[in-house]
Amino acid sequence: MRVTTIHGTRDIRLEDRPAPTIDAPTDAIVKVVASCICGSDLWPYRGENQITAGDPIGHEMVGVVEEVGSAVTSFRPGDFVIVPFCHSDNTCPHCRAGMSSGCENVGITKGGQGEYAKVTQAEGSLVKTDGMPDESVIPSLLTLSDVMATGWHAAVAANVRPGSTAVVVGDGAVGLCGVLAAAQLGAERVVAMSRHEPRQKIATEFGATHLVAERGEDGEQQILDLTDGVGADAVLECVGTDQSMRTAFNIARPGSTVGFVGVPHGVELPVGRMFSRNVGLAGGMAPVRTYLPELLDLTMKGAINPGLVFDLTLPLDEVAEGYRAMDERRAIKVLLQP
Amino acid sequence: MRVTTIHGTRDIRLEDRPAPTIDAPTDAIVKVVASCICGSDLWPYRGENQITAGDPIGHEMVGVVEEVGSAVTSFRPGDFVIVPFCHSDNTCPHCRAGMSSGCENVGITKGGQGEYAKVTQAEGSLVKTDGMPDESVIPSLLTLSDVMATGWHAAVAANVRPGSTAVVVGDGAVGLCGVLAAAQLGAERVVAMSRHEPRQKIATEFGATHLVAERGEDGEQQILDLTDGVGADAVLECVGTDQSMRTAFNIARPGSTVGFVGVPHGVELPVGRMFSRNVGLAGGMAPVRTYLPELLDLTMKGAINPGLVFDLTLPLDEVAEGYRAMDERRAIKVLLQP
Repeated sequence: MRVTTIHGTRDIRLEDRPAPTIDAPTDAIVKVVASCICGSDLWPYRGENQITAGDPIGHEMVGVVEEVGSAVTSFRPGDFVIVPFCHSDNTCPHCRAGMSSGCENVGITKGGQGEYAKVTQAEGSLVKTDGMPDESVIPSLLTLSDVMATGWHAAVAANVRPGSTAVVVGDGAVGLCGVLAAAQLGAERVVAMSRHEPRQKIATEFGATHLVAERGEDGEQQILDLTDGVGADAVLECVGTDQSMRTAFNIARPGSTVGFVGVPHGVELPVGRMFSRNVGLAGGMAPVRTYLPELLDLTMKGAINPGLVFDLTLPLDEVAEGYRAMDERRAIKVLLQP
Repeated sequence: MRVTTIHGTRDIRLEDRPAPTIDAPTDAIVKVVASCICGSDLWPYRGENQITAGDPIGHEMVGVVEEVGSAVTSFRPGDFVIVPFCHSDNTCPHCRAGMSSGCENVGITKGGQGEYAKVTQAEGSLVKTDGMPDESVIPSLLTLSDVMATGWHAAVAANVRPGSTAVVVGDGAVGLCGVLAAAQLGAERVVAMSRHEPRQKIATEFGATHLVAERGEDGEQQILDLTDGVGADAVLECVGTDQSMRTAFNIARPGSTVGFVGVPHGVELPVGRMFSRNVGLAGGMAPVRTYLPELLDLTMKGAINPGLVFDLTLPLDEVAEGYRAMDERRAIKVLLQP
């Protein structure tokens, strides 16, 4: 089968590899219907994460069950499923407590940017739709495997409340989904920090009531002005750099929480400021499976349309161009069709 | 009047200084009935904080109102009051949101280890008792000015829930008050990490159900064993060092929160672990005034007796010995009588 592999900095290839096989009774093989490139895939692409040359890449996908192991009883070949990027058994104490990304048997989708992928803990991880979904909804369903659930996690971790002012730092696909999540969770004012017109437009469609184009101190001042000097009730940090984290803490009001979902790179947390201002930090790797039933319901009834984050669709053969487009910010998020 | 001053490392003096005066209509002067030495006073005492030689020291006190400014209408001379270590107007957006330590007009008690102290924002800060309290309850009332409210804040920030397992890192007076708070908030298991027999005894009186004497990895392993490998539902970090913070994060279960109230010294937060395990951090300088009504009620009806943390009472004249006793861990917490 064809699968995307990474060989070094900015070296993405589509290669022929053996299709994955059932190795454990809890495994399932899913034929990919749609996958995509994650902002976090750009870290190894840019050489900022260690890689093993030749590793398959890609962890966001939806597809059709091809084969299941003997312990997988709720799914069968032909089911259309959303595959959470992190697999979980849905029975361990962490899953039961709603933190499925901390599952004792956690796994991660590998090679999702390909034709077939293996899901470990398939019984606990997969969520199926009622029959084959309409093609038009597939982009939105695809976002539920990671990016939309991650934006949702940022909003939940930041404790977005009805009537509050939420600020989203970062206008990547996760940040845009964070805007959508904050609006869904009832924030009265949702501020998107974005300077890119196409992203501003999606943010507005997703429910942003305010746009702040400035960065750094200027942007922070705008947030303070907007809130009469009080600061934001909730801040969603959706980047993962030291600068974005600092901005997040600089605009968060005392007693509030920064919800963070950007994989931290070079972040040094301002513990002294956190202490003196009583600003907390919560979040991390999103418990996708935990949120999936609710997000699937919202998507199927049309309450959210997170698939709007895809502004470029490419055949899998052109995956390398997809990476280039995202790296150069020519595309917000790239959907791949095998 | 006599007041305690700090002149350098381990150089504490009792000196004669002019009594404080009303400088603003929001001020009040309180005659000290009892004050005490805070664990955080030991940082400058040990030379680990910058000081200005000769500065008055001490921020925990109860006393009797001596004089009030013209804007202070709810208090008059003769009222017995608890003085939160941080003063707040109780009307600004942060106070109204329950984060009085983030007050736009925040102040801090200075020279509380003396005969008289000034309270800025007296109207919003002070809380009075019904008449003069019995002498026996004064130590407990004194703890409400800081240490008990701070332990409470750790438990609230860590989101201690009924039926949960809470672990308290640190067996200083704040940690012990954290044990008391976690038990009051309904934790089913309260684990005190303490190796000192007198502190273990108070922890047990305060509601600790388990004691862990080991530190570092051994202590962490004990917590994991106690929780079947899951980790604690809530962790109260009541020290403020890098080691205690690391222990806190190592024993917190995924999705839980470390509540921190120890002024951080040399702490580098493990942001990568926080992300991968979804363990949050919340807390900081306690909003004492916010908690005071509830804590005063619990104290007056005898539901809590936090004054047990005082194991040494000295006349103010012997304040330098009080610092030595706490520095050398001969005393848990020293009460000073002017």
